[in-house]
Amino acid sequence: MPLLDELRARLGEGAVLSGTALAGRSAGFWHPEPLRAAALVRPASTDEVALALALCHAAGQPVVPIGGLTNLVGSAACGEGEIALSLERMNRVEAVDVAGRALTVEAGLTLQRAQEVAAAHGLLLALDFGARGSCTIGGVIATNAGGNNVLRWGMARAQVLGLEVVLADGRVLGALTPYRKANAGYDLKQCFIGSEGTLGVVTRAVLALQERPAGGATALLACERFTDVTALLRLVDRALAGTLSAFELMWGDFYALNAAAGGGAAPLPAEHGYYVLVEACGESIAADEARLQAALEAAFEAGHVSDAVLAKSGPERERLWAIREATEPEQHAYRATQTFDVSLALDAMEAYVGRVRAGLARAAPAAVLHVFGHLGDGNLHLLVGHPEAVAQATTAAVEALVYEPLVACGGCISAEHGIGLEKKRWLPRSRSADELALMRGLKRTFDPAGILNPGKVFDPDPQG
Amino acid sequence: MPLLDELRARLGEGAVLSGTALAGRSAGFWHPEPLRAAALVRPASTDEVALALALCHAAGQPVVPIGGLTNLVGSAACGEGEIALSLERMNRVEAVDVAGRALTVEAGLTLQRAQEVAAAHGLLLALDFGARGSCTIGGVIATNAGGNNVLRWGMARAQVLGLEVVLADGRVLGALTPYRKANAGYDLKQCFIGSEGTLGVVTRAVLALQERPAGGATALLACERFTDVTALLRLVDRALAGTLSAFELMWGDFYALNAAAGGGAAPLPAEHGYYVLVEACGESIAADEARLQAALEAAFEAGHVSDAVLAKSGPERERLWAIREATEPEQHAYRATQTFDVSLALDAMEAYVGRVRAGLARAAPAAVLHVFGHLGDGNLHLLVGHPEAVAQATTAAVEALVYEPLVACGGCISAEHGIGLEKKRWLPRSRSADELALMRGLKRTFDPAGILNPGKVFDPDPQG
Repeated sequence: MPLLDELRARLGEGAVLSGTALAGRSAGFWHPEPLRAAALVRPASTDEVALALALCHAAGQPVVPIGGLTNLVGSAACGEGEIALSLERMNRVEAVDVAGRALTVEAGLTLQRAQEVAAAHGLLLALDFGARGSCTIGGVIATNAGGNNVLRWGMARAQVLGLEVVLADGRVLGALTPYRKANAGYDLKQCFIGSEGTLGVVTRAVLALQERPAGGATALLACERFTDVTALLRLVDRALAGTLSAFELMWGDFYALNAAAGGGAAPLPAEHGYYVLVEACGESIAADEARLQAALEAAFEAGHVSDAVLAKSGPERERLWAIREATEPEQHAYRATQTFDVSLALDAMEAYVGRVRAGLARAAPAAVLHVFGHLGDGNLHLLVGHPEAVAQATTAAVEALVYEPLVACGGCISAEHGIGLEKKRWLPRSRSADELALMRGLKRTFDPAGILNPGKVFDPDPQG
Repeated sequence: MPLLDELRARLGEGAVLSGTALAGRSAGFWHPEPLRAAALVRPASTDEVALALALCHAAGQPVVPIGGLTNLVGSAACGEGEIALSLERMNRVEAVDVAGRALTVEAGLTLQRAQEVAAAHGLLLALDFGARGSCTIGGVIATNAGGNNVLRWGMARAQVLGLEVVLADGRVLGALTPYRKANAGYDLKQCFIGSEGTLGVVTRAVLALQERPAGGATALLACERFTDVTALLRLVDRALAGTLSAFELMWGDFYALNAAAGGGAAPLPAEHGYYVLVEACGESIAADEARLQAALEAAFEAGHVSDAVLAKSGPERERLWAIREATEPEQHAYRATQTFDVSLALDAMEAYVGRVRAGLARAAPAAVLHVFGHLGDGNLHLLVGHPEAVAQATTAAVEALVYEPLVACGGCISAEHGIGLEKKRWLPRSRSADELALMRGLKRTFDPAGILNPGKVFDPDPQG
C-alpha cells in the first residue's frame, strides 16, 4: 500500500503499525478479537495528525479515529480497508491554569489521568464514568460522554472550553481558549462534540475544572413507588441545594442482582421497589452528612422513603457504588446481554418500562429485564439478559420492543452512548427526515470526501 | 409589494404592519429612532412562521428575526428593504413539567415572564441579566445570552433542552424534548444557539429549570490587588461549595461612579482597587449567611480582602446590585460611551486592562475607562466614555486600542453580546480564515438562499 509507505516515511516507522505488528492489539474492551485495520497510525503531534489526514484525504483513504475503544455502539469499529488513527502517543498534559480552573491536554490522555492531574491541584474534572481508566479525552469529547455527575456539572459538552480539531483534509481548526464565554460567530466546536469522529479529529482540548469539594456524603435509599422516586429527587435537590452530585436510580431487580453478587450482607434488603444512590459534595463531610441526614428525615416523614443507609466510611461508599456500577453479575448470569441507553420524560418512565416488560414477557419470555439509570438526566439504561444462546431474530425483536414504545412517547434512542453502527437503523425513527438531511449537510461541509469514520451514525451520502 | 399582500391574505391583516402602522414602533431599547423595515410580520403560531418564511424564501425576500430589541451589537438591526419577523404574538407558556424541571414556551415570551412562571412553581429559570423585562426567549437563545449566573448555571446554551426552529425555507425542525441527555446523531440545536438569527428562527423551546434555592446571601468585598481578586474567587468558590451564584468584579473607578450616583452613603468607601459582589444561594438564608460570613473571615485572614459588607435585607441586596447594574451614571457622565464585551484568561486580565488604559491615555486622553465583569467566566465589560462629542476616527481608534491587545493575548472579541453588525469587521481578527470558511459553509447548509438576517455576523457569501 503506497500510502502506508508514505505515512511511514513522513511520520516514522513506529508511527505506522500493520500486519503482525497489529497482532497484539485488541478491538476494544468489549471486543476480545484482534483489531482489524489496514494499519494503525499513531501521530505524535497535531502537525503529524494533520499530515496523516492530508495524505489519507488525497488518497481517498477511509480513517477511523479511535480512542480507548470502550464505546458500546461501534462508533470506533474498524474495517480491514480502513486506517485506525490513534492519539495514544499524544497523551501530554500541556497546562493547568489554577486561577482560571482550566486544564489543557492532548486528546490521547485517559480521563482518569486527567482527573488525577486536576486533583493534584485541588481541582476537579467533573466528568466521571466506569470506563475512566481506558477512555481518552478525545473519545470523551467525540461522543459527548455523560456519566455519574451530569446532574450537577453537565455532559462533556458543558466542560469543553477550547478545542483543537483536525479536519478530514488536514486543516487544523479551533483555539485552545480557557474562558467560559465566547459568542464570536458560530461556535464551531459544538459541531464536533458528540459527532463520533465523523466531522473531525479532536487533537487537544481545554477542559473546565471545578474547585474540588472538600466534603462528600453518600446514601442508599429505598422507595416503593415511582412517584416517590421523582418526589425524592425534588426533595433532596432542594435540601442539598447546589451540592447534589448524583441521583442514581436502580429498579428493585437490578439492585437484587448486583447486591447479592457483592459478597457479605446487602446494605439494604432486596425487597423494595426502587433504590436510589444519592451523593452530595459540599464544603465538608460533616456539613454534607448533616444536610443529607436532614433530607432523609424529611423524605421519611413525607412517606417517600421506606429504608435508608448512610455510608459511614470510604469502603462503605465504594460498596454502594459497586452495586450501581458492577457489570459482572449481569455477565455471569446471562449468556448474552443487550444494553440500551434511552432518555425520556420522567413522567413517562414508569409506563414505558412497564410496556417494555410486558412486551418481553410476550415475545421473549426467557429474557430478563434489569433497569437503572441517571434519573435526574432523564436517562435509563435497560439490560436485557438472555439465559441461553439467542437468535438474531430474537435480539432484533427485543430492540423493537425497547424502541417502538420509546419513540411513541417522545424518547431518545441514545442518551449518552451515541449511535455508532449499532443504533444506526433506529436513527430515522428518532430524528426526522429534515434533521437527517441537515446532518448529511454538515457532514458534506466538514468532510466532503467522506473519509472520516464513514458509515458511522448514518450511511454515507448517496450524493457525496 | 405583492409579497406583503400575500402575507396579509394568508396570515391576516393584523399580522403584517407596514407604513404608518409601523410609526409607533421603535428600533429598540438603545435606539429611539423608529423601526425601519419593509414590514413587521407577526405570525401567531409555528405554522404561520413556517408559512411566512416559505413565502419570503420563494420571493428571495430578506428577513430579520427580531425579539425584544435589546441587543447591543446590531444583531436585529433592520434595513428598509427587509422584513422584520417578530414572535410577539407567540408568547404562550405551553407546559411546566414540575417533576422533570422543564418549561416549554413560545419564543416571543419575555425572559422575566418565563422566570416568573418558573418561580410560581417553586422552580428557577437560572438565566438572568438586566434586559430581562424586554428580551425574549427566542432572542436569548439566538444570541446564547449569558448574564449574572453563568458561573453556576451556564449560558443559555446549557439551559436549552429542546428547541423548535423554522428554517429559512419554512421547514420546521427540532423537537421539544425535556430530557438533559440526547446523543442521537448531530445535536443540530447547538448550531442555532448563538447564531444570531442567521440560520433559523427559534419558535419554541424547552428550558431546564432548577429547584429554587430557599436561601440567598449577598456581600460586597473590597480588594486592593488583582491577584487578591483571583485568589478570592477560588476561596469563596470552595467555601460556598456549589452555592456560589455570582462573582461580579468592578474596577475601583467603575464602583466610584455608580456608588456615588445611587444617593445616600456608599456601602463601602470608594478608595479601594477592586470591588466584588458575591452571591450565594443555598438551602436557607441562615446557612448561606453563615457560609458567606465564614468565607469572608477566611478571606480577611488570608489578606485578600480589605473591607466588606453583607447585605442584611432585600433592599440592601438591591442597592448592591444596582451599583453593579446601573447604566444611567455612565450615560449622564458622558456624551457617548463605547461598550465592549471581551473574554480572556484570568491571568492575562490585569496586564490587558493596563494596556488598554495606557493606550487610551495616549490616543484619546479625554476618554474615561470603566471596567467591570463576570470574573468567574473570564468576561470583562469595558466602557469607554467620551465627555465631549467624539469623531468617528476616534471611536475607531478606541476600538483598535481595545481589540488589538486582546487578540494578541488570545482573548475573544465577544463574550456574550455577539457580533451582529458592530463587531463584524473584527471577527476575522478573532477567528481564523478556516473557521470563517466553515461558518459560511454552515450558512449555506441551513440557508442556501441567504435570506435570514443577511450581513449579520459576516458578510454574505460571494459564492452564495
